[in-house]
Amino acid sequence: MSFINDNFMIGNATGLRLYQNVAKNLPIIDYHCHLDAKEIFENKNAENMTQLWLGGDHYKWRAMRANGIDEKYITGNASPEEKFAAWAETVEASFGNPLYHWTHLELSHYFFCDEQLGSHNWRDIMEHCNRLLQRPDFAPRELINRSNVEVICTTDSPLDTLHYHQLLRDDETFLVKVLPTFRPDDVFAESPAQFATFVERLSALTGVNIHSFSDFSTALGMRIDYFHEMGCRISDHGPVEIHYQAADEQSVEAIFARKCKGEGINHLDNAVLDSAIFIMLAKHYKQHNWAMQIHFGAIRNNNTRMYQTLGLNTGFDSITDQSHLASSLNGLLDAMSQNGGLPKTILYNLNASYNDIVASTIANFQSAELGVKSPMQFGSGWWFNDTRRGMENQLNSLADQGLLMNFVGMLTDSRSLVSYTRHDYFRRILCNLIGGWVEKGEVPDNNKILTKMISNICHDNAHNYFKF
Amino acid sequence: MSFINDNFMIGNATGLRLYQNVAKNLPIIDYHCHLDAKEIFENKNAENMTQLWLGGDHYKWRAMRANGIDEKYITGNASPEEKFAAWAETVEASFGNPLYHWTHLELSHYFFCDEQLGSHNWRDIMEHCNRLLQRPDFAPRELINRSNVEVICTTDSPLDTLHYHQLLRDDETFLVKVLPTFRPDDVFAESPAQFATFVERLSALTGVNIHSFSDFSTALGMRIDYFHEMGCRISDHGPVEIHYQAADEQSVEAIFARKCKGEGINHLDNAVLDSAIFIMLAKHYKQHNWAMQIHFGAIRNNNTRMYQTLGLNTGFDSITDQSHLASSLNGLLDAMSQNGGLPKTILYNLNASYNDIVASTIANFQSAELGVKSPMQFGSGWWFNDTRRGMENQLNSLADQGLLMNFVGMLTDSRSLVSYTRHDYFRRILCNLIGGWVEKGEVPDNNKILTKMISNICHDNAHNYFKF
Amino acid sequence: MSFINDNFMIGNATGLRLYQNVAKNLPIIDYHCHLDAKEIFENKNAENMTQLWLGGDHYKWRAMRANGIDEKYITGNASPEEKFAAWAETVEASFGNPLYHWTHLELSHYFFCDEQLGSHNWRDIMEHCNRLLQRPDFAPRELINRSNVEVICTTDSPLDTLHYHQLLRDDETFLVKVLPTFRPDDVFAESPAQFATFVERLSALTGVNIHSFSDFSTALGMRIDYFHEMGCRISDHGPVEIHYQAADEQSVEAIFARKCKGEGINHLDNAVLDSAIFIMLAKHYKQHNWAMQIHFGAIRNNNTRMYQTLGLNTGFDSITDQSHLASSLNGLLDAMSQNGGLPKTILYNLNASYNDIVASTIANFQSAELGVKSPMQFGSGWWFNDTRRGMENQLNSLADQGLLMNFVGMLTDSRSLVSYTRHDYFRRILCNLIGGWVEKGEVPDNNKILTKMISNICHDNAHNYFKF
Repeated sequence: MSFINDNFMIGNATGLRLYQNVAKNLPIIDYHCHLDAKEIFENKNAENMTQLWLGGDHYKWRAMRANGIDEKYITGNASPEEKFAAWAETVEASFGNPLYHWTHLELSHYFFCDEQLGSHNWRDIMEHCNRLLQRPDFAPRELINRSNVEVICTTDSPLDTLHYHQLLRDDETFLVKVLPTFRPDDVFAESPAQFATFVERLSALTGVNIHSFSDFSTALGMRIDYFHEMGCRISDHGPVEIHYQAADEQSVEAIFARKCKGEGINHLDNAVLDSAIFIMLAKHYKQHNWAMQIHFGAIRNNNTRMYQTLGLNTGFDSITDQSHLASSLNGLLDAMSQNGGLPKTILYNLNASYNDIVASTIANFQSAELGVKSPMQFGSGWWFNDTRRGMENQLNSLADQGLLMNFVGMLTDSRSLVSYTRHDYFRRILCNLIGGWVEKGEVPDNNKILTKMISNICHDNAHNYFKF
Repeated sequence: MSFINDNFMIGNATGLRLYQNVAKNLPIIDYHCHLDAKEIFENKNAENMTQLWLGGDHYKWRAMRANGIDEKYITGNASPEEKFAAWAETVEASFGNPLYHWTHLELSHYFFCDEQLGSHNWRDIMEHCNRLLQRPDFAPRELINRSNVEVICTTDSPLDTLHYHQLLRDDETFLVKVLPTFRPDDVFAESPAQFATFVERLSALTGVNIHSFSDFSTALGMRIDYFHEMGCRISDHGPVEIHYQAADEQSVEAIFARKCKGEGINHLDNAVLDSAIFIMLAKHYKQHNWAMQIHFGAIRNNNTRMYQTLGLNTGFDSITDQSHLASSLNGLLDAMSQNGGLPKTILYNLNASYNDIVASTIANFQSAELGVKSPMQFGSGWWFNDTRRGMENQLNSLADQGLLMNFVGMLTDSRSLVSYTRHDYFRRILCNLIGGWVEKGEVPDNNKILTKMISNICHDNAHNYFKF
Repeated sequence: MSFINDNFMIGNATGLRLYQNVAKNLPIIDYHCHLDAKEIFENKNAENMTQLWLGGDHYKWRAMRANGIDEKYITGNASPEEKFAAWAETVEASFGNPLYHWTHLELSHYFFCDEQLGSHNWRDIMEHCNRLLQRPDFAPRELINRSNVEVICTTDSPLDTLHYHQLLRDDETFLVKVLPTFRPDDVFAESPAQFATFVERLSALTGVNIHSFSDFSTALGMRIDYFHEMGCRISDHGPVEIHYQAADEQSVEAIFARKCKGEGINHLDNAVLDSAIFIMLAKHYKQHNWAMQIHFGAIRNNNTRMYQTLGLNTGFDSITDQSHLASSLNGLLDAMSQNGGLPKTILYNLNASYNDIVASTIANFQSAELGVKSPMQFGSGWWFNDTRRGMENQLNSLADQGLLMNFVGMLTDSRSLVSYTRHDYFRRILCNLIGGWVEKGEVPDNNKILTKMISNICHDNAHNYFKF
C-alpha cells in the first residue's frame, strides 16, 4: 500500500469513517494565504518542480541548511537539477518533520506519484513532475479548480490597487472567489521614516490631507471601504508582541504628529500610538463586519549575516516569548470592546505554551452581539505550530476552554498553489483526534453530532463566519 | 450501552480494574469547595434544574456565550425553560469540553438519566429532573450523603462567625463534617480603603487595638485560633501572581501604618507588605499544623462592560502569565522556611506551562519535619486545568518530579451540591493513566502497590495529611 | 516475565524491532558526564550499594525527602543498612518516577537482579549487590567496559592539570577514551572576588600577565590549546538565564579591569562582560572546531537552611523561567556568528515550555560551513527533563522544527558508573516513539531509513559530530 492513503495520519476506525464520509471531499475555503492575484490571473504554469517547490519556500530551505546542504544548492546558483537532488536528500532525512508529509501529499495528490522521494529516485520523480507541470491542467487556475476551492483570500497592502482582484472578478471563466485581505503593516512600522512615507502615500491615494490622527482614520477608512467593495471581509496584523498602552486623545495626536514628521519615537510612545491605531482600525472593521486576524509571536531576521545576503523571509525567523501576555491581550481586547469596536477576531499564537492563555482569553469576549457563533476565534496552529502536534495542541486547548464545534478551521498561509493538501492534512488530524475521543469513550458515537462537527470545522463555520 | 458507564474515560483493562475494584466506591474528602454552610444547614431543595445548573455556574455561561446564546438566556430575564433549552443546545455543541462530561455524569449519577442532552429532548429531561428535585432525597444533605462524602471544607472570611458551621456541628442528625477554611482575601487587598476597613472590623471583632503589624498578627492569630476550634485545618489564598519582596521590620511597620490609614501604597511597598503578611500567616498556620493553600495565576474581570453589568464571578476570568515565577516562588517559600514557619503547603497553578516549575520547586522544601509525607503538595488541575488534559498534565508533572504516591488528590472547588461527580471524573482519569503505565510496561503490575496508590490518592492521603 | 525485559518502555512492535535489531547493542559515546578521571584511573570498587547509589545522588535524596524520610537516613549519620532500607521504601513509592526505572535497570543490567526493590526485600537485594560489588568485574573500568562505552567526556575546570586524563591516556590496558571537557564556570562568576581569584590563578598557570581583556583571552586560549592537546573537543557552560548585552571594546575593558580588582559590578555591566567573554570563548572554540554546550535554566540552592547545612548539589535546585528568552538567545548566537565565531553548539534547556523556542532558534543558525550536519543542536532532555515525557517532548520538538535524523543523542550527565543504563532507557524511548510513528502511518516502514535514523541518533551522529 502506498504511504499516502486514506489511513495516513489516522489511527482509529471512527476517524477514518469521519474522514472518508465527511471531511475528505468538502470544498475548501482558504481564508488566509499569500498567493499572488496576478499569478492566478496570468495563469502561467510553473517552470519546473525546483521553482514550484524551492523557489521561495523557506521552510524547505531551513531543513536543507540543517541537513548540511551548502547554500549554493539552496538559494545559490546551482542548477535546478542540483537543487532538486539536494532537496530529495533532505526529504529522506526529514522523517518526523511535516515537510515529509507535505511533500508526499503533494506528490500523491497533484502528481499521481506514490513513491517515497529520496536520493535514489530524485531524477525520475523530478522528470515525471516536470513533464506534468507543462500540461494545461497544471496551470494555476486548474490546480485551484482541481483542489475544490471555493474562496481564496490573499494578503494585501492598504495601498494596493487590487487591479488583479478586479480582473479576476470580471473574468467569467474563473468562478473561484479571489478576495483581498487588508494587511496594514506600515501603520505599525517602528521606523518613523517608513511610517511617514506610508502616511504620505495614503494621503496621495485617498486625497485626504492627513493632519491629525482623525484624518488618518478617515483616510484608512476610505481604503477599508474600497477593500470592502472589492469583496474583502478580513484584515490581518502581525505584531511581534501584544502590548496595550492607554492614553488620552491629545497624547495620541502629539505622538502621531511627531511620527508623521519622521521624528524618533520612544518605546512607550510607540506602544501608545500602536494601541490607538489598533483600536481605531478595530472600530472600522466592526462597522464593516469584518474579521480581524492577529498573528503574533514571530521574531524575525535573527541571523544578521544571512539577512544581509538574502533579505526578508529566507528562513531565519523563529518563535518568541513575551512577558504579561494575558494582561496585554485582555487589555487590548477590552479597550476595543469598550470603544464599541471589538470585531470578529481570530488570534493566531506562535508560542504554544500560551495556547491556554489565548483560548481562555477569547472566552472573556464571546457574545451573541455580532450575530455569529464564537466571534472570538483561536486560530489554527500557525507556522511553527502547523504540525500534527501543533494542531492537536490548538484543537485540544480550544476544546477544553471553548467550543470546538464553532471553530473556523484551517487555512494554508501559503505562497504555493499546491499547498491545498494542507487542508487535507488538517482534516485527517482533526478526524483522527475526534475519532479517538469516540473510541476512548470520551464522546458518544453520535453520528449526527460528529458529522456536523467535522463539516462545521472543515467548511461550514468559515462560510457562516466570514460571509464572503 | 449508555454513554456513562464504567468504561467512561477509561481506555485500558488495568485502569478499569483499578477503577472498579479500588477507586469507584471510596468515600470523598472534599477538602476545598465553595458550598454554603447555611445552605447545608437549612437543607432546602433546589427550585429546579435551571437554578441548580445555571443559577451561578459561570463555566456554563461562558460556553453559552461562545455558542451565540443571547445574554437574556444566560443571566437575563428569560424563563427557566428558555434558559434550560439554551443550555441544552450548548451541551450538544460542547463535544470535547468537560462540560459535556460533567453534565452527563450528573444526569446519570443523581438523576438516573442516561440520555444525551440536546435540543431534541431538553424538555423531557428538564421535566424529569425537576420532578426528582422535589423529592426529599434531593435535599442538600441527602445529596451529600448519597455522594459518600466524609468531610466538606467550605471557604470563609476571617471575620465570619461560622454560625452555621457550629449549628451543623451540633446537629446530630447529620454526620458529615462541614469545616471552615480560613481565606483572608482582604489582608492582601490592593485597595488601602478595603484594607483599612478590614483592619477596623478585625479590631472590633477581636478586641485587639491594632496599632502595629505585631498587633495585626495577634488579632489574626485569634481568628485562626477560633477557626481552629471550629475544626478548620486549612487556609486558602488567591494571589494573581507570586511575588516576594524582603524588607526589615521597620519598613513593614511603616507601610502597614500608612495602609491602615487608607493612604496610597506603591507597587513595591504593597509587595513588601504582602510578603510580610504571608510569612506571618504561614507561621500561624504552621503552629496550628494547618495546610496552606495557594491558588495563583487567575486574571479576573477582563471584560469591563460585562463587569459593570454583572459584577464578579460571571465568566470573564482567564489564565495569566508572570515573569520570574521560579525565583519568586522559591524566594517566598524559603523566607517562610527561614522564619521557621513553612507549614504544609498546597500550590495550585493556573498556567500549565508552569507545572514543572511548581513540581520541581515543592521538592526543594520537602522534609520529614512536619510529620506527613510530602508536606509540600502540587494541587490538582485547577479551574481551566480541571480537564482531562489539565489533570493528566498535573499528574504527569508530579510523577516525574516527585512522588505521585503521596498526592492528596482531588477537590471539587464547586458551589454545587451535585459536583461530587468531579471526584468520580478524576478517579477515572487517574485509573486510566496509571493503568496505561502498567499496560505499556512502565510500572509492574504489582496489585499491592497499585491498590495502595489509588487508595492513597483518592482518599487515604487526604485523611492522613489534613488530620481533620 | 521480569519487569525489565526488551519490551520495557516499548509499546509497539516496530519499536521493539528497532530496539532489538539496531539500538540495543550499539556502543555508547558518553559525551557529557561528571565522572572523576581519578576514580577511573585508580579503579577502586565501590564500598557498598549505599555508597554507590546514595553517596551523592541528590535525585534520590529529593525523593526520600518527599517520602517523609528523616534527613538522618538521607545525608545524616544513619548506617548504610538503614539508609538502604529507607531508599527501598522510597523506591516502592516512586511508581511513575524515572527513579523507579533507573533503579531496576541498574539492578537488572549490572547486578542480574530482576526483583522489584521494596520494603519486603531490601536486605536480600542489598546483600546480594554488596557481594557482587567486591568482585573484580565491578571495578570502575570493568563497569565501563561491560557497558560498551567508546568515549567518556568528563567535566573540568580550565585550571585543571588533567593529570589523571594523561595517566589514563598513557595506560595501554584501558582503551576507552576519557577526555576532558572545558567548563569555565569562574569566568562567569558573579562575585568579583571569585572572578579576580580565577584571573590571578589563570595568570599564574599560563605565565600571561593579564592586564586587559585581550590578555584574558590569550591566557584562556592557552588553556583551550592545552585541553585540545589532551583530547578535549567540547566546552560546557551553565548560565542561569540567557542574556545578551552588546558593548564596545572600551566598555568591556573598563568593566573587566574593575572586576579584576574585585570591585562591585552592577547587573547590566555583568551582562556586558559575560556577553563579551562568551563571544570571545566561542571564537576560540570555533577555531578548535569544538562543540560548545550551554545548559541553561537551573535555579540553585533554593532552600537556605539546607544549603547552610549541606552545601551545593544536595537536592535543592529546580527549573527557572526568564523573560525574553528568544530575543536573548538569538541575539547571543547572532553576535557570535557576526564575529565569525559561532562554533558547533548544543543547547540544553531546563524549562520544557521553551523547547519550541530553542528548536526553532537553532534552525536560524544552521549551515554547511562547519562541515557537519546540524552544527546547531537541541540537546537531549536535561535534569528535570531526563524523563520519558521530557525526552519525548525534546524529540518531538526537534522533529517538528528540525531534522531529528541529525540529532547527536543521549548523554548520562551522571556522577555514577552504573548510569550507562540511561542510554538504554533513552534508546527504548526513542525506538518506541519512532516505531509509533510507523504504526500510526506517519512515516513509511522504510527499514533502511529507520535503521539509519536509530543508528545515527544512538551512536553515529555523535561520532561524526564531535570527531574525538
